[in-house]
Amino acid sequence: MPDPPVPDPPVPDAVDLIRAKRDGGILADADISWLIRAYTDGAVADEQMSAMAMAIFFRGMGVAELRAWTDAMVSSGQRLDLTVVTAPTVDKHSTGGIGDKVSLILAPLVASCGAAVPQLSGRGLGHTGGTLDKLEAIPGWRAGLSAGEFVSLLQTVGCVICAAGADLAPADRKLYALRDVTGTVESIPLIASSIMSKKIAEGTSALVLDVKVGSGAFMRDLDAARDLARTMVQLGGEHGVRTTALLTAMDVPLGRAVGNAVEVQESVDTLRGEGPADLVEVTLALAREMLALAGLAADPAAALADGRALDTYRAMIAGQGGDPDAPLPGAAHSQIVPAPASGWLGRLDALAVGTAAWRLGAGRARKEDPVSAGAGVICLAKPGDRVERGQPLLELRTDDQARFGRAIEALAGGIEIGPEPPVIGPRVIERIA
Amino acid sequence: MPDPPVPDPPVPDAVDLIRAKRDGGILADADISWLIRAYTDGAVADEQMSAMAMAIFFRGMGVAELRAWTDAMVSSGQRLDLTVVTAPTVDKHSTGGIGDKVSLILAPLVASCGAAVPQLSGRGLGHTGGTLDKLEAIPGWRAGLSAGEFVSLLQTVGCVICAAGADLAPADRKLYALRDVTGTVESIPLIASSIMSKKIAEGTSALVLDVKVGSGAFMRDLDAARDLARTMVQLGGEHGVRTTALLTAMDVPLGRAVGNAVEVQESVDTLRGEGPADLVEVTLALAREMLALAGLAADPAAALADGRALDTYRAMIAGQGGDPDAPLPGAAHSQIVPAPASGWLGRLDALAVGTAAWRLGAGRARKEDPVSAGAGVICLAKPGDRVERGQPLLELRTDDQARFGRAIEALAGGIEIGPEPPVIGPRVIERIA
Repeated sequence: MPDPPVPDPPVPDAVDLIRAKRDGGILADADISWLIRAYTDGAVADEQMSAMAMAIFFRGMGVAELRAWTDAMVSSGQRLDLTVVTAPTVDKHSTGGIGDKVSLILAPLVASCGAAVPQLSGRGLGHTGGTLDKLEAIPGWRAGLSAGEFVSLLQTVGCVICAAGADLAPADRKLYALRDVTGTVESIPLIASSIMSKKIAEGTSALVLDVKVGSGAFMRDLDAARDLARTMVQLGGEHGVRTTALLTAMDVPLGRAVGNAVEVQESVDTLRGEGPADLVEVTLALAREMLALAGLAADPAAALADGRALDTYRAMIAGQGGDPDAPLPGAAHSQIVPAPASGWLGRLDALAVGTAAWRLGAGRARKEDPVSAGAGVICLAKPGDRVERGQPLLELRTDDQARFGRAIEALAGGIEIGPEPPVIGPRVIERIA
Repeated sequence: MPDPPVPDPPVPDAVDLIRAKRDGGILADADISWLIRAYTDGAVADEQMSAMAMAIFFRGMGVAELRAWTDAMVSSGQRLDLTVVTAPTVDKHSTGGIGDKVSLILAPLVASCGAAVPQLSGRGLGHTGGTLDKLEAIPGWRAGLSAGEFVSLLQTVGCVICAAGADLAPADRKLYALRDVTGTVESIPLIASSIMSKKIAEGTSALVLDVKVGSGAFMRDLDAARDLARTMVQLGGEHGVRTTALLTAMDVPLGRAVGNAVEVQESVDTLRGEGPADLVEVTLALAREMLALAGLAADPAAALADGRALDTYRAMIAGQGGDPDAPLPGAAHSQIVPAPASGWLGRLDALAVGTAAWRLGAGRARKEDPVSAGAGVICLAKPGDRVERGQPLLELRTDDQARFGRAIEALAGGIEIGPEPPVIGPRVIERIA
């Protein structure tokens, strides 16, 4: 029997909104705003919001709904005001991939060209730690800054990478934790509004998105990645944040290092002009996008070559208590994975390498777990390299010798050596503006 | 980035099962059994189960999944053993409709023909109370019986209508309450497994389903009703309960009385041979199905005509502490709704009348609310009747005079009087076996 109508409800009813979305209806702005506020306050229960998230997974959201949803997430906390910063503000967000240490190089590189990069970051559950975990491998460096320190470093150094405060889009914080345990992460509108609400609240004037595609990326498929990129670019524009996106390949780890301290080391090497070609390619492409959005004509390749970017990096690390000259933590044990055959390395699967790094201790299984600073994988050869049977292919590092076995299992099927040199495509696949 | 795999999980992971169902996969029997058990125990959280229910809403369940799901719900509690009862056991379940007092007549009618009717019932949230609420209008009658009383009355009287104990499919009890607040009620596999798990656990050997179709029914649409009926008939057979279904029309209230005490009165009138034609039609059709499944050749029309059914009704009421001769509660206020025009009454919408009865106090808005025994609506004319402008059409009854206004509003658009006699179809639309 249909439920009888409740007389004159004083507020929208969560069940009605869930059913409306479930049945393909369009939610009104006021209903979305009420729902997000009531969920943040606890008036709408987790079990209602997870049912709504699943309905959104299936039904999607229209342009107006998504704008209202993102607005409501931004409005659940404080939107930072960076108008006091004199340099043009521009940030980058990556959807994440294996060996993705780009932020560590890009933020100081772009800052050294005259922009201000206000990067607020989370930790997340990846195959390696997030950007904050990587930087925490540096002795003394701290992720937590006051709002005053944040703005002051932006003005003096030109870039900051630090932890987002509890008041940055708290609705997203709560909703993301819920989606993580209810199988509702993989929804383009929910991903887009989650990412963009935090970046909009952060106060940046411009934003470049690095949307990764491939086995080691959240988006395995080019069409879905393009859809996500377009959705986020539009959301940025609607909220006054000039936004563009690059789709970049993530079938192979980016650079050679996958882990935390090892990625910091590779970032420093890159800032010294000794970076692997693919990492340099992606970093410069993103830097050019950011500088263009910031209205700055500087050449980032020059800033990388002449050491300005490295100087800014050292200032950024020191500004957050880190010692850029301190030795980075190592791992207690290492083991070489040799090439199983001679030939051309055709495939080195990002997901396989990422899973191995994760099993070595570089990532976390639960939010509250620590990551191992020294654990990880070094790729001693990359696709396109000629290898001889028995030659070192990967170096695995861990604090716990017992982890090698399961890490090596993760690599099964992820390495292919063939008789012909493979065709290696560009890392930057497409630009969305 | 895709979540890293957790090494060797000792049990299935709820998130993996939700994602599998969400993406159109088939859940294994063992996974379903684990999920329902873990949910009942609290190891799987409400927010996970509601996301699963929404995924099932969109993806449905295959035959094997639904059987396993229903099994798991039955196994979450105790399955009654009625083998001690010598008469063949047969029960009825109705999906519910406006003025549906059939159980009150049917159970004693079929019992008077030699079957045993073990009807365990819930309360639910309808436009009027459920069968238990209706019977509670009878002074002294009590819904709660011990297992011993239940079996003893089945053997002596031949029929019992009482409240299901907490150990009857407790997983369903928990899941139904969750579905009610998360917009996941309207799923055919979830409805079918909810109904059938309780009926299977009740221990009946045979079951007839009254699946109602129309504005006042849960299923508005014939195809959906047929699908639900077929699904339940199959589930019954798979669990050793011989099951058939009748699809019956629910566009107009069944009989003339809609409420609690007023429906008890109409049931007694029907058992006295003075029932409205549509109510008698549906009741006899269901009785014939039940008796056929029970392998009994008796003629229910004769049992109704000769007073045997009424005698059994009186014994059933008395057996549960009720006084069948006590006056039924009335309502403090009544108001007539006159015919707005002269002509043939073509439509008297079940949902409109049900909503009016609910607003008069006959139903409840929340599980914990009481119902008013005396409130309700009497239909003084039915579609097919000739009416004159100003003639009494409906009598509204309530304990709270302030409720008349909103009740009358609910009737707007629900009454149509035209120049031609309407075509009145049969109440019993189709049989599914």
